[in-house]
Amino acid sequence: MSAIKTLRLLMPQWQGGGNNPAYSLGARLLEWLAPKGSHPTIEVPIDPYHSTSIKKENGIIEQSALLKQLEDATTIIHQHHPQKIVVFGGDCLVEQAPISYLNQIYDGNLGVLWMDAHPDVTTPKDFQHEHAMVLGNLLGEGDPAFAEKVPVKLNPKKVMLGGLQETMAYETEVIQRLGLRHVGPKELSKSSNSVIEWIKEEQISKLFIHIDLDVLNASLFRSLLFANPYQDPKIFDGVAQGAMTIPELTRVIQDILPLTEIVGLGITEHMPWDAIHLQEMLEQIPILKE
Amino acid sequence: MSAIKTLRLLMPQWQGGGNNPAYSLGARLLEWLAPKGSHPTIEVPIDPYHSTSIKKENGIIEQSALLKQLEDATTIIHQHHPQKIVVFGGDCLVEQAPISYLNQIYDGNLGVLWMDAHPDVTTPKDFQHEHAMVLGNLLGEGDPAFAEKVPVKLNPKKVMLGGLQETMAYETEVIQRLGLRHVGPKELSKSSNSVIEWIKEEQISKLFIHIDLDVLNASLFRSLLFANPYQDPKIFDGVAQGAMTIPELTRVIQDILPLTEIVGLGITEHMPWDAIHLQEMLEQIPILKE
Repeated sequence: MSAIKTLRLLMPQWQGGGNNPAYSLGARLLEWLAPKGSHPTIEVPIDPYHSTSIKKENGIIEQSALLKQLEDATTIIHQHHPQKIVVFGGDCLVEQAPISYLNQIYDGNLGVLWMDAHPDVTTPKDFQHEHAMVLGNLLGEGDPAFAEKVPVKLNPKKVMLGGLQETMAYETEVIQRLGLRHVGPKELSKSSNSVIEWIKEEQISKLFIHIDLDVLNASLFRSLLFANPYQDPKIFDGVAQGAMTIPELTRVIQDILPLTEIVGLGITEHMPWDAIHLQEMLEQIPILKE
Repeated sequence: MSAIKTLRLLMPQWQGGGNNPAYSLGARLLEWLAPKGSHPTIEVPIDPYHSTSIKKENGIIEQSALLKQLEDATTIIHQHHPQKIVVFGGDCLVEQAPISYLNQIYDGNLGVLWMDAHPDVTTPKDFQHEHAMVLGNLLGEGDPAFAEKVPVKLNPKKVMLGGLQETMAYETEVIQRLGLRHVGPKELSKSSNSVIEWIKEEQISKLFIHIDLDVLNASLFRSLLFANPYQDPKIFDGVAQGAMTIPELTRVIQDILPLTEIVGLGITEHMPWDAIHLQEMLEQIPILKE
């Protein structure tokens, strides 16, 4: 297969976020909204959503299906041996194959800016959704079944958590032990300086930007898990929620463009409730199928 | 040109709603979300959004551009001489060409179910946005410059306003003078009976369903003018807002399917704020264009 410099993947994975059918349309809509690249988007095959037979394996929801999807994504990437990757998720776990591959081809020097309300360094001991472990997996922590699939682990110095909110004790332990840099939404709302300094100090020349859209304030961007209009927000009491605005997130990205080469971008956790509900209605109007 | 039984139009018109660029992506997203029909969607050419040179003509924002777009839509419809039409707006004014054509080919017997928080029977004397006059135009009222383009006016008995909220005095006058039937969201939340009775009593055998999405409750469906997360909701104080839910609207449509033939459907006033803001961000990330 011919080489594509910048590979563009669509990975409508839902299993890593548990039992939630909203991911699929969210992934496809993201891809539709994005500027067109010079190559077609390749879709990683994902088992369709099913609510009836979801199973927990080794403490993780749908672990074997997720391992198979990781393998499929990895195979597609190696077939194209790109220099850069864009991935439209799906849940955060879609980042594992692209980041693992890029860190390998860039000899362990890949920088990763993790724009996310959460650090995603949980383990199966503490949680059952694999998407909360993906950064851990890439660092050689997280879920051993996934961490062992990463040939070259990320260098913790080359990872920065941006927009991070309050963490759980078990997350704080990992962050402190590995010395992961982090900056909260309040500081980022004023300037991008902490990210700029990190890129300069660690001499990051190849950067992957992960965007979990839940880094955003759910009252200004409502296409998030926490903003389902038919769910009582109280069910998320105690769960950290993002506080950034889209203009702030855009400014952080703009500010680092001149300093490093962006070799990867992942956008994840998009749950466009209005589009989902509208589509459900449109599906039931026969004249639209004529 | 060969005949298409059910013509599918995309009309990303914004001028009828005044100065608002959100309509274009809203229209395209609606078309993308809808089930695929058996024929491609035809796009009515619309002047791109421009905020700098918007002009008021005879009391109406962009009246001449809107008249030209009405003429273009009418020409496309007559080229295909369909028996049914689906239109994705754009502002409510996109309904004029399809409804006018269908009422003509069905000899003035077209029924129109106007699902909208507003009656759209304003005149240039009271307001400057043509989308608030479209049902008036089709009844021979509204804006004379648009009403004169309707060869066969709607029979007021064959029009029903569904989901209607409190009206302005000048709207109430038209509704009462013409004897337009109407049913509010509270009654429709309990049953579709008033619409069913109207279809039976008026023996409506061909029906056009207009959906202004603002018939929906903006706290449950946020892709509406009234739910821009960056605008203070107070600026809409005094403006009637919808109160229906998507399940209620879907049920009304389902309930009338067995009673009449749906020969037209228009969906309008879609303002997907999250998609608009997300797309603005994605446009500024160069790797997405590679």
